[in-house]
Amino acid sequence: MEKLSIVKIGGNIIEDDEALHAFLKLFSNLKGKKILVHGGGKRATHMASKLGIESKMINGRRITDADTLEVITMVYGGLVNKNVVAKLQALNTNAIGLTGADINSIKSDKRPVKEVDFGFVGDVKEVAYKSIDKLIQADFTPVFCAITHDGNGQLLNTNADTITSQVAVGMSHLYETSIYYCFELNGVLENINDKNSVIKHIDSKIYKDLLEKGIIADGMLPKLENCFDALKHGVHNINMGNTSMLTRENDNFTKITL
Amino acid sequence: MEKLSIVKIGGNIIEDDEALHAFLKLFSNLKGKKILVHGGGKRATHMASKLGIESKMINGRRITDADTLEVITMVYGGLVNKNVVAKLQALNTNAIGLTGADINSIKSDKRPVKEVDFGFVGDVKEVAYKSIDKLIQADFTPVFCAITHDGNGQLLNTNADTITSQVAVGMSHLYETSIYYCFELNGVLENINDKNSVIKHIDSKIYKDLLEKGIIADGMLPKLENCFDALKHGVHNINMGNTSMLTRENDNFTKITL
Repeated sequence: MEKLSIVKIGGNIIEDDEALHAFLKLFSNLKGKKILVHGGGKRATHMASKLGIESKMINGRRITDADTLEVITMVYGGLVNKNVVAKLQALNTNAIGLTGADINSIKSDKRPVKEVDFGFVGDVKEVAYKSIDKLIQADFTPVFCAITHDGNGQLLNTNADTITSQVAVGMSHLYETSIYYCFELNGVLENINDKNSVIKHIDSKIYKDLLEKGIIADGMLPKLENCFDALKHGVHNINMGNTSMLTRENDNFTKITL
Repeated sequence: MEKLSIVKIGGNIIEDDEALHAFLKLFSNLKGKKILVHGGGKRATHMASKLGIESKMINGRRITDADTLEVITMVYGGLVNKNVVAKLQALNTNAIGLTGADINSIKSDKRPVKEVDFGFVGDVKEVAYKSIDKLIQADFTPVFCAITHDGNGQLLNTNADTITSQVAVGMSHLYETSIYYCFELNGVLENINDKNSVIKHIDSKIYKDLLEKGIIADGMLPKLENCFDALKHGVHNINMGNTSMLTRENDNFTKITL
């Protein structure tokens, strides 16, 4: 099976012009077929506040009302996505910017209202991996922002990590897929206070041990749960660390396998 | 040669939810391979004013400074384009939203500064018609907004009519292309005060006569000059009228041929 890399970058890179340029260079140099997924970070919050739209949070999670969805569509789908595409073109990567509505690539269900009404938030239901592959086969590099659609004309705000893992799961029908989650840390840390205590390899058994020892907790717990879920659904391996893991020179990151 | 329709809609349709929905239905029902190009109309101006960005006009033309380009990228590339794509998906048209940066589809040169510095405005230089055709061959329907790029990472604001004619000229290498310019009038009018005085056919000879009689003037003059330029460069025919010309039921519009 041919290899495919799915790389996710977060808001911290998007918001820093220099970091973004350095990352896009690394991504452009990454060999083989690839997909980029980006978050939007605080730019949507800033834009919302400039427009006088209040960011409503419940239990630390953002509520996407109609006005907020408009801002997200402008900032993630327009400003961030199209500038990333233009910058990749300048680096000779033939990028194509996408939401889940484009080529019907990612369909989602509006999250049902239970205790909290999250508003226009979508949970991924279906990835049109054959359609996405048509772009890849045409030598285009898909660049996804964190927006999906419900198939009935409604755009929906969707977590970029989830888009990454679901697209990777879909593409695993056709490719040996590797996910690269780029974030601020060097990887999953043995000791949260020591940024160099990277755990270089985690598999199901090691993960169980780490859980029992209480080393995996807080924000890292759902991330790793999602990783093992993706691995169980066909993703070949998942890598977590800073952007330099995309080079061959740095092996100081966390590789996760089943 | 297979036929390809390139349809352009302006801001008046984009801004009116009902008119937009009615148009998108007509567009979805249009048989054969097709491309949509949309302007953004006054939504960008409204958004700019909400954000406290002054719209600078010189000789009636908008100056695109860096802040204005940001708004245009958000509104045309994000808000308008992605909502149009989602609505087309709901109508079973497998749309894909594009700027000229995506798949390097439309490269332009930043307009040189002469008497006026228009800012980040691009004049189309090159249409990657073979790349656009890869999307069409994959049964996707391209939806272009009025943004191009210079190939060096810079997005540029570009007139939607120009994008329409230049894309049509490019695609004429591969298809028998028809342009449909949808606008408020029923067509080119013999008498500007009589909306039913549509001139149903204009060719080079008739055009010359109309010019001599002074019937073509003002805003219509550059539009028709552009039309004949496109026809000379391979476009098969150009149609101007209201959106109902996309149906077979209305023949009350202007058809332009060489």
